[in-house]
Amino acid sequence: MENFVFYSPTYFLFGKNEEEKAGKYVRRFGGSKVMVHFGGGSVKRSGLLDRVEASLAAEGIAYVELGGVRPNPRSGLVYEGIELCRREGVDFILAVGGGSTIDSAKAIAAGVVYEGDFWDYYQDKPVEKALPVGTVLTIAAAGSEGSPDSVITKEDGMFKRGASGEALRPVFSILNPALTQTLPPYQTACGITDIMAHLLERYFTNTKDVEVTDRLLEGLLLTMVHEAPRVIADPDNYEARANIMWAGMMAHNNSCGVGREQDWASHAIEHELSAVYDCAHGAGLAVVFPAWMTYNMKHDINRFAQLAVRVWGCQMDFAHPEVTAKAGIDSFQRFLKSIGMPVDFAELGAKEDDIPAMAHNACYGDGGCGEIGGFVKLKEQDVVNIYKLMI
Amino acid sequence: MENFVFYSPTYFLFGKNEEEKAGKYVRRFGGSKVMVHFGGGSVKRSGLLDRVEASLAAEGIAYVELGGVRPNPRSGLVYEGIELCRREGVDFILAVGGGSTIDSAKAIAAGVVYEGDFWDYYQDKPVEKALPVGTVLTIAAAGSEGSPDSVITKEDGMFKRGASGEALRPVFSILNPALTQTLPPYQTACGITDIMAHLLERYFTNTKDVEVTDRLLEGLLLTMVHEAPRVIADPDNYEARANIMWAGMMAHNNSCGVGREQDWASHAIEHELSAVYDCAHGAGLAVVFPAWMTYNMKHDINRFAQLAVRVWGCQMDFAHPEVTAKAGIDSFQRFLKSIGMPVDFAELGAKEDDIPAMAHNACYGDGGCGEIGGFVKLKEQDVVNIYKLMI
Repeated sequence: MENFVFYSPTYFLFGKNEEEKAGKYVRRFGGSKVMVHFGGGSVKRSGLLDRVEASLAAEGIAYVELGGVRPNPRSGLVYEGIELCRREGVDFILAVGGGSTIDSAKAIAAGVVYEGDFWDYYQDKPVEKALPVGTVLTIAAAGSEGSPDSVITKEDGMFKRGASGEALRPVFSILNPALTQTLPPYQTACGITDIMAHLLERYFTNTKDVEVTDRLLEGLLLTMVHEAPRVIADPDNYEARANIMWAGMMAHNNSCGVGREQDWASHAIEHELSAVYDCAHGAGLAVVFPAWMTYNMKHDINRFAQLAVRVWGCQMDFAHPEVTAKAGIDSFQRFLKSIGMPVDFAELGAKEDDIPAMAHNACYGDGGCGEIGGFVKLKEQDVVNIYKLMI
Repeated sequence: MENFVFYSPTYFLFGKNEEEKAGKYVRRFGGSKVMVHFGGGSVKRSGLLDRVEASLAAEGIAYVELGGVRPNPRSGLVYEGIELCRREGVDFILAVGGGSTIDSAKAIAAGVVYEGDFWDYYQDKPVEKALPVGTVLTIAAAGSEGSPDSVITKEDGMFKRGASGEALRPVFSILNPALTQTLPPYQTACGITDIMAHLLERYFTNTKDVEVTDRLLEGLLLTMVHEAPRVIADPDNYEARANIMWAGMMAHNNSCGVGREQDWASHAIEHELSAVYDCAHGAGLAVVFPAWMTYNMKHDINRFAQLAVRVWGCQMDFAHPEVTAKAGIDSFQRFLKSIGMPVDFAELGAKEDDIPAMAHNACYGDGGCGEIGGFVKLKEQDVVNIYKLMI
C-alpha cells in the first residue's frame, strides 16, 4: 500500500426530511449570506427549493438565487456566479441538486476568493481556498457531495476538465433518498453507472496487496448489482434508493480508494463524448467502460478474473482465467443494458468520424501530456482503438 | 435504513515514517503545549517516543509526558492526567500507543475542560467539549484513532464503561503500519479479533434492507480472514499490517455501520471478563463472540447464514439454513483458534463461580437498566447462559 492522506470532514445528514435542517447547518458552518445554486425547474416544481429557502429564512439568513446549471456544467455560469457572489457579499454557497450543480457551486466557491481566472484550477492548480459549500443532494451519482473534486466544461473549446483540493469538500451534505424517488429510470441508471465507474476507476490498479480497498470496492459494486434492478423496477423503493445513495458517497470520498494507484482513463475518454454530444456522463461511461476493459484485459488477467468472480459471481476457469475475465466484462455489459443504458456509439448518437479528434483531445486537449490512465498508460492510438470498440 | 448523522473529521496520515510529521500536525491543529501520553516502556525502547518528541521540538512546541497507561486503562491515571494538564496549561494531548492510550487521552481531554467528575461522561453524559487529541497509533485494534468513543475502567468497583461524543474524535491520527511490526503474535491476534468484533457488533441488526453496510462490513471481515494468517505467519509483513490497520479504522469510524441498529452486547459481556481477570479485550471477545452467536442464532437464522456464506465461504444449505449458520460460527471459532486466541473460560483463566456476579454487573452495573444488546435484548439469565457456553 502506498502512503496516503485521508481527510473527509464533511458533515453528513442522511435520511427523510433532513433538508429541513439546511438553514441550521448553514448557520453552524458560518454562513450569513447565501447563494442558493440549482439547475432547472425540477427543484422548484417539487417544492424542494421552497423548503430549503424556508429553512434559511427561519434562521434569519439572507440569500440570493442562481439557477440554470445544466448537466455537464459550463464555465459561463461559473463566471456569472462569481460576479453575483462578489456583488452580493455572499459568504456561503448552498447547492441544491446533483453533481453538476455541486460541481458548479464548488467552481464558484473557489473563484470568488481567487484573484485570477477560476479556470486555472481546472488546469492542475490545487484549490487551497474557497467559500464554504453545503449541498442538498437530489441524485445519487457523482459523489461530489463528499469529494474534493469538481468537473466543469469550458465553453471556449468545449474542454471538460477537473479541479481538486481539500477546500472543495462540502462542509455539510444533506442526503435524503426520498428526494431521488422522482428521478426517471434513465437518469437513475446513469447515476448507478457513474457510481460503478468511480469504483472501477479505483479498482484497476497496479498497486499490489490492497485487499482492504479491493474488498470495500467490491462490496460497493455488489451493492449496486443488488439495488439497481430493485430501483429500476420500482422507482419509489426508498430502501434501494438509500443504499445506492450512501454507496455513491462512499464510492467517491476515497475512503475505499486510498493507498492505491487509480486509473481514470475511462473518465477522460468519456468526457470527450459528453463534451461533444452533451450526453449524460453515466450513459457515456456505460459505453466507454466495457470497451476500455476489453482493450486492457490482457494487462492483468487475474485482476479482471477476480472482479468477475467476486462481483459478477462467475466461476473461475483456472485453466483459462481469460475466459473468466471476459465473462465478467460480458456480465457487466448485460447488467448495464438491463438497466437501460446504451451499449454503443449509435445509441449515444456518437459518430465514428469524430474519433480522431476526440482521441487527440482526450490525450492532449487543454494541457494534456499525451498519455492518460494509471493502470494502463494509453496513448492517442490506444484511445482511438478503444473508441472503435464502441461502434 | 434509519436516518443518521455521519461526521468523521479526523485527518489521517497513513504509511511509513509519517510519525515524523506529528509536530507539524500538532501545530496545524492549534497545539502549543502538549501532554504526550503513552503506556509502558515499549515506545521508549523502540525510539518512537524520541522521534515523536523530536518532531514537537522541531516545531518549537513545549511538552510534558505522562506514561503508565495499562491495557484496560484506569480512572486513576485519568485523574492524574487532568491534574497535570491543568497545572501545566496543556492545550493539546498527543497519544502515542494503542487503543488504551488513546482512550485514556480522550478521557483526560474531556476531563480537563469539565468542572465536574470526568466519570459523568462514562455514565451516559455526551461529551460536547474536550481538548484536541492527536494520535500516533501502535496497534491496529480498537479503532479509537478514528472513533468518537473511549472506554475506561473505574478502579472503585472495577466498572468498565464507555463515553462518546463528537468532541472525542481525534483531530489527526498517524497510522504507520511499520510501528505494529514489533507486536508479538498474541497481541496482534487480539487486535484482529477486536476489529472483527467491531464489525460483527454492527453486522447483527434488525434493521432491514441494509445491503450497502452489510457488504462493506463483509468486505472488511473478508480482509481480516485474508490478512490475519499472513501476519501471524510473518509479523514483518508490512502489506498485511497495512491492510489490517486501515480495516481497523474503517471498522470503527462507523462509515460502514450507519443507518442500522447495532448490537454491542458481546462487548458488555466481555468488559466484565477483562475488568475482573484483566485479560486482553480481544482475547475476551474471542471467547465471548462465538458463544453469543450460538445462543442468539435462532433470532435470525438467515442473517447468520448470510455471514457464513459471504464471509466464511460456506455452502448454503437451502433446506436447512441453520446448518449453514452453525457452520459459519464453527468456521469463525476455528479461525480464532488458528491465530492463537483462547476459546473458553479455562484458557482465559476465568471461573464459573464468578458468572452470576459478572452477568449481574453486565446488565445492572453502574447504572445499567437490566437489559443489553440491540439485536437481541438479553436479560441477566441470558447472560448467565451465554457465559456458561464458554466453559
